[in-house]
Amino acid sequence: MNFSSDTAAPAHPKVIEAIAAANQGNEPSYGGDAVTARLRALLATLFETEDFDFWICASGTASNALALSVLCSPIGAIACHEEAHIERDERGAPEFFTGGAKLRLLPGHGAQIDEEALRQALALNNPDFVHETPLETLSLTNLTECGTAYPAAQVAHYAELAKAEGLNTHLDGARLGNALVSTGASPAEMSWKAGIDVLTLGLTKTGAIGCEIILLFGKMRAAFGRLQARAKRSGHMPPKMRFLAAQAEAMLTDDLWLSLAANANQSAKELANLLCAQPGVSLAYPTAGNEVFCVLPKEIEARIIKAGVKCYPWPGGPYRFVCSWATPQSDLDAMRELLAET
Amino acid sequence: MNFSSDTAAPAHPKVIEAIAAANQGNEPSYGGDAVTARLRALLATLFETEDFDFWICASGTASNALALSVLCSPIGAIACHEEAHIERDERGAPEFFTGGAKLRLLPGHGAQIDEEALRQALALNNPDFVHETPLETLSLTNLTECGTAYPAAQVAHYAELAKAEGLNTHLDGARLGNALVSTGASPAEMSWKAGIDVLTLGLTKTGAIGCEIILLFGKMRAAFGRLQARAKRSGHMPPKMRFLAAQAEAMLTDDLWLSLAANANQSAKELANLLCAQPGVSLAYPTAGNEVFCVLPKEIEARIIKAGVKCYPWPGGPYRFVCSWATPQSDLDAMRELLAET
Amino acid sequence: MNFSSDTAAPAHPKVIEAIAAANQGNEPSYGGDAVTARLRALLATLFETEDFDFWICASGTASNALALSVLCSPIGAIACHEEAHIERDERGAPEFFTGGAKLRLLPGHGAQIDEEALRQALALNNPDFVHETPLETLSLTNLTECGTAYPAAQVAHYAELAKAEGLNTHLDGARLGNALVSTGASPAEMSWKAGIDVLTLGLTKTGAIGCEIILLFGKMRAAFGRLQARAKRSGHMPPKMRFLAAQAEAMLTDDLWLSLAANANQSAKELANLLCAQPGVSLAYPTAGNEVFCVLPKEIEARIIKAGVKCYPWPGGPYRFVCSWATPQSDLDAMRELLAET
Amino acid sequence: MNFSSDTAAPAHPKVIEAIAAANQGNEPSYGGDAVTARLRALLATLFETEDFDFWICASGTASNALALSVLCSPIGAIACHEEAHIERDERGAPEFFTGGAKLRLLPGHGAQIDEEALRQALALNNPDFVHETPLETLSLTNLTECGTAYPAAQVAHYAELAKAEGLNTHLDGARLGNALVSTGASPAEMSWKAGIDVLTLGLTKTGAIGCEIILLFGKMRAAFGRLQARAKRSGHMPPKMRFLAAQAEAMLTDDLWLSLAANANQSAKELANLLCAQPGVSLAYPTAGNEVFCVLPKEIEARIIKAGVKCYPWPGGPYRFVCSWATPQSDLDAMRELLAET
Repeated sequence: MNFSSDTAAPAHPKVIEAIAAANQGNEPSYGGDAVTARLRALLATLFETEDFDFWICASGTASNALALSVLCSPIGAIACHEEAHIERDERGAPEFFTGGAKLRLLPGHGAQIDEEALRQALALNNPDFVHETPLETLSLTNLTECGTAYPAAQVAHYAELAKAEGLNTHLDGARLGNALVSTGASPAEMSWKAGIDVLTLGLTKTGAIGCEIILLFGKMRAAFGRLQARAKRSGHMPPKMRFLAAQAEAMLTDDLWLSLAANANQSAKELANLLCAQPGVSLAYPTAGNEVFCVLPKEIEARIIKAGVKCYPWPGGPYRFVCSWATPQSDLDAMRELLAET
Repeated sequence: MNFSSDTAAPAHPKVIEAIAAANQGNEPSYGGDAVTARLRALLATLFETEDFDFWICASGTASNALALSVLCSPIGAIACHEEAHIERDERGAPEFFTGGAKLRLLPGHGAQIDEEALRQALALNNPDFVHETPLETLSLTNLTECGTAYPAAQVAHYAELAKAEGLNTHLDGARLGNALVSTGASPAEMSWKAGIDVLTLGLTKTGAIGCEIILLFGKMRAAFGRLQARAKRSGHMPPKMRFLAAQAEAMLTDDLWLSLAANANQSAKELANLLCAQPGVSLAYPTAGNEVFCVLPKEIEARIIKAGVKCYPWPGGPYRFVCSWATPQSDLDAMRELLAET
Repeated sequence: MNFSSDTAAPAHPKVIEAIAAANQGNEPSYGGDAVTARLRALLATLFETEDFDFWICASGTASNALALSVLCSPIGAIACHEEAHIERDERGAPEFFTGGAKLRLLPGHGAQIDEEALRQALALNNPDFVHETPLETLSLTNLTECGTAYPAAQVAHYAELAKAEGLNTHLDGARLGNALVSTGASPAEMSWKAGIDVLTLGLTKTGAIGCEIILLFGKMRAAFGRLQARAKRSGHMPPKMRFLAAQAEAMLTDDLWLSLAANANQSAKELANLLCAQPGVSLAYPTAGNEVFCVLPKEIEARIIKAGVKCYPWPGGPYRFVCSWATPQSDLDAMRELLAET
Repeated sequence: MNFSSDTAAPAHPKVIEAIAAANQGNEPSYGGDAVTARLRALLATLFETEDFDFWICASGTASNALALSVLCSPIGAIACHEEAHIERDERGAPEFFTGGAKLRLLPGHGAQIDEEALRQALALNNPDFVHETPLETLSLTNLTECGTAYPAAQVAHYAELAKAEGLNTHLDGARLGNALVSTGASPAEMSWKAGIDVLTLGLTKTGAIGCEIILLFGKMRAAFGRLQARAKRSGHMPPKMRFLAAQAEAMLTDDLWLSLAANANQSAKELANLLCAQPGVSLAYPTAGNEVFCVLPKEIEARIIKAGVKCYPWPGGPYRFVCSWATPQSDLDAMRELLAET
């Protein structure tokens, strides 16, 4: 029973097949290859626009940090949730890539920024007061770190508030597929149509080996040259880029990524139901995607630990259980049995 | 006829097979997997020591920059050849990763540092003079950027000079296999036995998809925690690390990497002979590995360009032709025919 | 009536005299002068120890940031109060000088860190977990940003807690004189005897033109070379350093700085009493030093604004009134009259 | 006999008087004071334009680095002479302030960039080639590090070449007064009229305590907000800024700075004549300003050292003798006597 993380899962077989298929003959390095060219067309269809540029990156941390490095100057700040991955789990990557920008941490339940806190931070923002670091960017995460989902309308609303104060907007979509399946929004509705300037679209947790796509929409395309230079400078311009593009192509073709995200979400829903059927178990946050956060009674906690179930104690008390595209039914069945024991 | 770069080549089939084989079930993320564990044993045998730590990285630029970031402080300087990859081709990655260290550029024929220039730089080094940036590290490259090879004894000699002045030592081994095949030195002889503190062992150009190994020897192992933190911070700690380890394992098993490097060197030798058999063609530098640098008469230059031969005009006049493990005999034969035309 | 800031005040005449006196003949640059040499003896007496090194700096922001740059690595974090000057008012200087370290913000009334919050942050600190940025330093401020004072015993207690978890300690003493006068502690008791590794001793707000002293105690002396290099690199190694040293000498001789701080504190006390004598006025925080934070009824607020009294609306509602060594009795008398009007 | 450096000299008495005069009553902090306002008018007259913004800074290193930080991005490079102060004597300040930009070093006699080398570097510049760091800025120094002077026409010519390739231009004028006196050019002719975008106008070596003015001309005024933010962030926004402005005002009023520079140049000329009158003594570089670079025969070298004359052995062999506004005639007379001994 492994619910430790969706990064513990293997890649989907089609990803491996695509890598093998890409391994034919010479190809220009650094993104000049045929697979990368095909990927552009795929993304244009998926996002219903030609008004974008993109870069592929093997790392989620790097894709976020690269995105932020073109959205925020060294003398600016990024507003994000206090539990955001860019704050908690990236060892200062945003500070490193931006050259020392600050993160301004905002509270809110379920890792969603509280609207009043956002409005207050925006109201206090004063770019002309040289002593303070002004907000330049709003970074949202969807699916959030607590497994909840912002509806597209809320992303659009927050982006509108931010833009009214002159900020850029970023969406960390490490689990975007899970959020889209959960909310029913389309990729376009959740990104540029909602006012998002730069999206980091994660495919690693969804089923790739290591593949994240940074998309610059509209006016942010002007930053594409700088993004490439920063990718090069940080070691995120692999010469044999076709192998990253092949992963992306496999995942996006025929909406494989959304099918896999739907599988993961469904497993999580089943797991949540199993857990909540137990007396004393409650959800810490609604299970919108593929992550279940539960408060467990001591007895169940002990049983789970004893059985070697892999899950993660979350700061503050609840346990996090993550399902992936590859979570086997047998793990869910075993969990059912374990919980049924008395 | 594609002699543009060894990064234009595909990966060796065994690398693809290894990736597919690694794609079984769940594995701990971030290097806690079984493949990475096996790799350690393989490296210990290869380098004839247990006194090392290592990190795997998909990018050559990042592996150099990460290595340098633990070898040189922001207030120090790195001595390297003026044509070194870290100076010319990495878009300031060393400056970025170190937090603003300087590169001190030294001259020398064939991209090998001139001994007198090195001695002079070391003699002038004065860490106590606060206004100047003192040398903290010597970085050598083998195979060099001009396709020549330092013998292990020369690496050892330079490392000794550097260490006598308190410097650390780094070896950029993006094409280490080609240099080992060429010089007959063992991996140990070319690295820690020669006084190298940190080696970046490149496998991408040799036949992997994207796989470089940073090895910290002896006292530099104390920096391993910092190296990991910097890898994390720069997006070079992939969660599904098993797929990097699998590439390395495939390449190092049964010395596949050295066989592939030998193939590439052999092709380059054949190509050099073909070219030099033409009147007026001369080698700009000796062909020690898989790269041929030739000065071409106008007529041959024109013929090559007209035929669409992929090669690279090098600053200063010569053309660079790179062979890889996958250079087909047909390309060499076609080149022979092209040159034979008159 | 100018209570805007103690930096709006002129320098004490003895500071100007000292500068004029230092302006005789040639002197070695960069701290090799006679005045700087005399200053060392003065500091040794003041701090009752020889086990220190020091650097003089014209800027409070730079002296804090330089101190932090030798106390915290780019991959570490600094715990401080959420209203600390280093977080709020220095435009990201700590992030810039450290190369991207993070500030971990802790709550607490009156800009004093809450003990429970500190204990919790320390308990959660896990330097071995590579994904999170571990705390490396605790930074306290005394006098705090809200004009309150930590007693020396509390500084010692917090430093002890921090050191038990392996952290270094920093004290931002931009208004240290005011805190010493208020608490009765000696400079030694408030710094190294309390476990402070690096003190930034501010004299600018107390009566100099621009003069802050960074003191490294005990084991931190090993970082003195790095501190100097970073001072040079950031433009804080003035060639004509004697003029900084002269200011420090004037201020420290015969405890002038403490007399001036006492004057400022006394003025603030008088002002606080005047204000609190009005119905509806209350102190937001106790007036330990030279800053008064008051909540004002609308009517008094309006009267004060109409009269052009210079003071500063503080985030959250209260007004800040700052007294300096040079606050004239006439300003206090005018305030008395203004408040007496009805 | 002290010819060690013009920074060993005291400040001119009028500078001290101006500081004392500025020390009256309260003044707004951070440049909002009356003296700073007057300085703007003085600069407008001096530079014959209103199309500029300026910032005052106590440090020459910082004023150069701040200027470069708004002229060059972290992913760009700065072309300068290989002996430039920004390369040799500022401990990596440009790399620090820019966030990791590179310096591209160009050769040339007498610390003046060779035109052919400049043309070649510009011709090879390819901002679209992502792997290399493109030139973004040309930085010239006048007076140069070897005491020679670029005529205004040459500055204009080099700036034109640079701008034709899209570069910005910077002039390090740490000894600008000496260069102006030497060449007869006006401040405007040597700066914006010659195509200089940002000038750092040094007054410290000329006779101030510590006072450098960064001037942004024309289109670079758009960067003024960023310059201020970076000044704040690096500790170069002193609260009591009036004391910097007072120094500048004293120096610029009635062209005091040019008179002082003329004195220093005149002393250097006399010293050069004294030295060159000796058999075997030759100038390493022409004495355009206040610095004399001489190759000395062993015998004279020994006599000078024995007499304790303070001067500086320059890399490569010659000795550097620096005169200041305050070089006493007695030092020159003593030198005459010393040289006359036989």
